Amino acid sequence: MRLSRYFLPVLKETPSDAQIVSHQLMLRAGMIRQQAAGIYSWLPLGHKVLKKIEQIVREEQDRAGAVEMLMPTVQPADLWRESGRYDDYGDEMLRITDRHKRDMLYGPTNEEMITEIFRSYCKSYKDVPKLLYHIQWKFRDERRPRFGVMRGREFLMKDTYSFDIDEDSARKSYNRMFVAYLNTFSRLGLKAVPMKADTGPIGGDLSHEFIVLAETGESEVFCHADLVEMGAPGLDVDFEGDLQPLVDQRTALYAATEEMHDPAEFAKVSADRQLSARGIEVGHIFYFGTKYSEPMKALVQDRDGRPQPVHMGSYGVGVSRLLGAIIEAHHDEKGVIWPESVAPFGAGILNLRAGDDAADAACEDAYAKLSAGGLDPLYDDTSERPGGKFATADLIGLPYQIIIGPRGLKEGKVELKVRRTGETHELSPEDAINRLTEGAFLNG
Amino acid sequence: MRLSRYFLPVLKETPSDAQIVSHQLMLRAGMIRQQAAGIYSWLPLGHKVLKKIEQIVREEQDRAGAVEMLMPTVQPADLWRESGRYDDYGDEMLRITDRHKRDMLYGPTNEEMITEIFRSYCKSYKDVPKLLYHIQWKFRDERRPRFGVMRGREFLMKDTYSFDIDEDSARKSYNRMFVAYLNTFSRLGLKAVPMKADTGPIGGDLSHEFIVLAETGESEVFCHADLVEMGAPGLDVDFEGDLQPLVDQRTALYAATEEMHDPAEFAKVSADRQLSARGIEVGHIFYFGTKYSEPMKALVQDRDGRPQPVHMGSYGVGVSRLLGAIIEAHHDEKGVIWPESVAPFGAGILNLRAGDDAADAACEDAYAKLSAGGLDPLYDDTSERPGGKFATADLIGLPYQIIIGPRGLKEGKVELKVRRTGETHELSPEDAINRLTEGAFLNG
Repeated sequence: MRLSRYFLPVLKETPSDAQIVSHQLMLRAGMIRQQAAGIYSWLPLGHKVLKKIEQIVREEQDRAGAVEMLMPTVQPADLWRESGRYDDYGDEMLRITDRHKRDMLYGPTNEEMITEIFRSYCKSYKDVPKLLYHIQWKFRDERRPRFGVMRGREFLMKDTYSFDIDEDSARKSYNRMFVAYLNTFSRLGLKAVPMKADTGPIGGDLSHEFIVLAETGESEVFCHADLVEMGAPGLDVDFEGDLQPLVDQRTALYAATEEMHDPAEFAKVSADRQLSARGIEVGHIFYFGTKYSEPMKALVQDRDGRPQPVHMGSYGVGVSRLLGAIIEAHHDEKGVIWPESVAPFGAGILNLRAGDDAADAACEDAYAKLSAGGLDPLYDDTSERPGGKFATADLIGLPYQIIIGPRGLKEGKVELKVRRTGETHELSPEDAINRLTEGAFLNG
Repeated sequence: MRLSRYFLPVLKETPSDAQIVSHQLMLRAGMIRQQAAGIYSWLPLGHKVLKKIEQIVREEQDRAGAVEMLMPTVQPADLWRESGRYDDYGDEMLRITDRHKRDMLYGPTNEEMITEIFRSYCKSYKDVPKLLYHIQWKFRDERRPRFGVMRGREFLMKDTYSFDIDEDSARKSYNRMFVAYLNTFSRLGLKAVPMKADTGPIGGDLSHEFIVLAETGESEVFCHADLVEMGAPGLDVDFEGDLQPLVDQRTALYAATEEMHDPAEFAKVSADRQLSARGIEVGHIFYFGTKYSEPMKALVQDRDGRPQPVHMGSYGVGVSRLLGAIIEAHHDEKGVIWPESVAPFGAGILNLRAGDDAADAACEDAYAKLSAGGLDPLYDDTSERPGGKFATADLIGLPYQIIIGPRGLKEGKVELKVRRTGETHELSPEDAINRLTEGAFLNG
């Protein structure tokens, strides 16, 4: 992408209304624009990262055996009257009346709708287990939206729903999501710790939150330090096999959010392994049994022909919120330092004197070769002065930057800068390009 | 995908409330489920095709130089008061009041919001031209939603917006989209004819609708038959070059929707080339100059430092509606016959006796090899009887079907069926697999 064609409205000043660093950086780097309280446009840079996060979340759902579909944003209120949640949900539900005076709402979550879909088609134990998910915009009319996309009103969520014949089988579905989440967050460059959680308004018996530790986290959390150091199970996990040992290995160690914290239990953790910190919730999984299937009559016949309410769970990942969480975990004073998996561009080319024949030719050559090499480079071909180009490249987190100017070219040199470490190398243009296309830095 | 794990609720009966074939087939093939009038869930099969359509639309926008972003679904009403459309839009606009009693709405289109974004950041002739697009759910509260996803209330639209310094430059942006649309619809297996169109409530001077001819089309259209036979410009078009000849070649021929029809002009077309038919609108492009930029004060300084309202256009593709249009154009009495580019699965494997060791083994082998070959097969591993499996495979449009049963296997044979032609071949399992992985049918 040529910057002159792109739409990257970076801000020089830190907006005064942004309290946390991810919100500040997303505004400064031209990733988002607020359209109303808690409602954002995703400008091209932010949108590009959001799509990469979404795709990783999708791939790990697919790998775990979940099937993608898509439910609409607007729902009929009657569904929520069936479950009894229409009145319970309170002011956070965005209620809508259509032209025919029917009560509708903007879905804050989809337990009711997916239960309605399931019960319409699935009647037998042969129809389960099922794991269905969608990635869709939700709306929760927060009283005080804040922290940018971390607590917005319109937000992108991946929600999965499991349907099983009994609790044993439901636990296997739960474990699939537990493991898939560990792998998902790991691919996103995040250390997310599963913590015993309160089930809140969704209800149910068994629930874990996945928490990223960060100073700006919204709540206090307590856990065994080993959980933070433990790696993810890895992408070669057999989801058809027994996942219980992988789950037990983690749930055996103390980890709880503030609401569930038990100081006496925590005290049993050896003192040097007791970790109390602030955390950001990026995922939440629930097993809630027949809480919805009973009132909504989602019944399946068991092997003896008796109708039984199906056992359900739901599993959420805050996709748009993850972008904020990733920036909280990966930045420095100059801007964002993306994990490779979600970097919006693989490299940058900075033309220090656009209009100079030699500089233009060298930049065009680098642009063509890095593009052909699959690096998806951003080429700063604008007439901005060098200092501004350096600042923008670091702010938006171009992981590798080839800096090309007439002076260096006279000596046959360009500069290759690594964003993460700040190190720079003086190289011939060819060497700089080859180092990138050959992936010499890719463990960076 | 194994069918036993998938969620494909096919219906045996044609639903009585579906009037047109695409709606009937989408319900019968388990692609969609209605959640309220004009509001649908996209079940896994429908969702998979929708995503493929969306991706083709995206690729052709990117190729034409448009930059993707994403605006939210919920918008503040004040934006629409600025343009004067808040009152004009009438009952079709879904109006919402949030918990703080602020007037909001579910966006039916995004001219106002993109103009607000543009004016916030772009102040100079150096900031244009810009072509920005997003693919987002919209809501229009139709009085009488019908024809399934063809005239729904919540629908997926790709909308692009162009910003230029003057009309000459704006026409170049218009031409980019004109050509991109021809290529887009061609890749989707559709012959879409650009027709002079009324500009309607969006306003403006220059506008074309892209119309797919189909018996079930919503409106009458009139055109020169050459337009239907003319191929798309092709993916190697140089979007930086002069596109006017490609546009002129088409606009020189008579083509108009009912509202714009001029019988006297049409009569000048030679009689054997006069085509009147019914059509489905799948795209609509507008140049509307300063209609929004003037009232909303989206001004850019020209080279002489004088502020000028920016010239704008907007360009829409009905992504979810396209799925209906494709089925209207590509089906037979048994079900859907997908264009290769959007087929949800590349092939099917039908196990005629699941549980039989030889059949299971041969199917598993085919499944592994077709998957490895990138065909993304659907494997019907259920205990349904053969007749039902044949019907489902044709209904959902599996383009190539390897049919495997114990009887054939005893003679070393399986059947390979081509959905489009109905032809079948008796082959060894190896030959059948190889014919597909080697793409022997891919011109099908």
